[in-house]
Amino acid sequence: MKKLPHAMYVLIAVSYLVSFAGCATGIDQSKRLDWEQMRFVDLTHAYGADTIVWPTEQDFRLIVQHAEETAGGYYYASNRIEMPEHGGTHIDAPIHFSRGGQTLDLIPLEHLTGGGVRIDVTAQCSQDRDYLVSIQDFERWESAHGRIPDRAVVLLETGYGRFWPSRKEYLGTELRGPEGVQALHFPGLHPDAAAWLIRERQVKAVGIDTASIDYGRSSTFDTHVALLSRDVPVFENLANLYELPDRGFDVIALPMKIAGGTGGPLRIIALLPR
Amino acid sequence: MKKLPHAMYVLIAVSYLVSFAGCATGIDQSKRLDWEQMRFVDLTHAYGADTIVWPTEQDFRLIVQHAEETAGGYYYASNRIEMPEHGGTHIDAPIHFSRGGQTLDLIPLEHLTGGGVRIDVTAQCSQDRDYLVSIQDFERWESAHGRIPDRAVVLLETGYGRFWPSRKEYLGTELRGPEGVQALHFPGLHPDAAAWLIRERQVKAVGIDTASIDYGRSSTFDTHVALLSRDVPVFENLANLYELPDRGFDVIALPMKIAGGTGGPLRIIALLPR
Repeated sequence: MKKLPHAMYVLIAVSYLVSFAGCATGIDQSKRLDWEQMRFVDLTHAYGADTIVWPTEQDFRLIVQHAEETAGGYYYASNRIEMPEHGGTHIDAPIHFSRGGQTLDLIPLEHLTGGGVRIDVTAQCSQDRDYLVSIQDFERWESAHGRIPDRAVVLLETGYGRFWPSRKEYLGTELRGPEGVQALHFPGLHPDAAAWLIRERQVKAVGIDTASIDYGRSSTFDTHVALLSRDVPVFENLANLYELPDRGFDVIALPMKIAGGTGGPLRIIALLPR
Repeated sequence: MKKLPHAMYVLIAVSYLVSFAGCATGIDQSKRLDWEQMRFVDLTHAYGADTIVWPTEQDFRLIVQHAEETAGGYYYASNRIEMPEHGGTHIDAPIHFSRGGQTLDLIPLEHLTGGGVRIDVTAQCSQDRDYLVSIQDFERWESAHGRIPDRAVVLLETGYGRFWPSRKEYLGTELRGPEGVQALHFPGLHPDAAAWLIRERQVKAVGIDTASIDYGRSSTFDTHVALLSRDVPVFENLANLYELPDRGFDVIALPMKIAGGTGGPLRIIALLPR
């Protein structure tokens, strides 16, 4: 092989340096968020007097304490809140349906953050208020979008989030108390499909835009038991799932940190590339 | 210039392709989080009977409703909570001290997420319970670590977070009611330093590991007014700031979404490269 001119050695060396420098920068950036390049979707309903709670629970209450100019010359406003752990956009901790399970404060942050997928079952659920999301729904999603990644946060979009805050449309009934529980009609996740997500895809967490991961007709809450007994937290009453793509986003779900909590208010957001 | 052997053209072409492929991957990753490469620091105290609240507020209460095997054959546990908006690790929304300001549900997520810096003033605060963090403290930090980035989340570490949950050490008093407020002694942020952070560094949010961003002796809450009247949210009663580096981390602060809230429980975490 003929000897190369000196300039060409320099050119080759520079091209490799550019390559390494570019990659090194890429690695640094992948470990830090570029906030200016992200956009957010808030998957959280705000708490208020119209927040939907389980028929047997008392409503969320905001109690105004102060909202006035003070003698000190400054304006001051503050409130108190009273609520059930499981109303509004909230999380179920494993102990909610699993004796001795993790309480809310002990759920690892690694289970509350991760790549997300949205499973759109709005068509099925608009036909059937008692629809159960099935393994076939996941297989259909995978045919279109590729394998559900391992250790994902799986969000089920039934479309019922759009009914919020109408109890009649969202829950299927406005009745309160045990009578209300008997009259619930809304979709949920089949317990076999929950077991599949755990066994086949090591799902981190599961969320849904209805009042419960078990469908309204359930009296044994098998899906709750399936997920929570395996330390998979559940997100309920999610909002705005229709703003998400099917994949290609991250989920950050940060619950109020209640020592010994069985669940509690959740602020959950999706991060998407701009 | 002499003609190059064919093989060298191929080598140069390949080296450029490697460079572009590497950079392209880097750009994609910078827009998505690589969760396996991150670690978390939870900056949140758990809510419980020992949660520190302002001397004039009632304590956080967890009211157990259920914790038993049911007739349906499944275990079930749930609670209710009652609390002031401004106890424990919480956020102050602009309306807390600014008439007509943003309520909690309306704070943009862009103000609650961003690159973080930790300003360590533990030495100053261990000498003086009434210490006020000053512009000089920020200048000293910048001498050591470079300019505080624009649009950062600035966390002030007084060291008092280690006193939690001892009211005597943390607040300077165990007294309750107006007498307790008169006896408060803990460090805070000088209002001039707050104005500097807004004007000179466009700070997104400010946090502190004491009960208030104004020091315990304050009766006019000038620092609250300075920050909140400019729509800069405040994070109070932060935990574990000593686990953070001085810079090189991201902050995600997700408060409970209370419609009309003046503040509320906050789950706040830091993300660091592993």
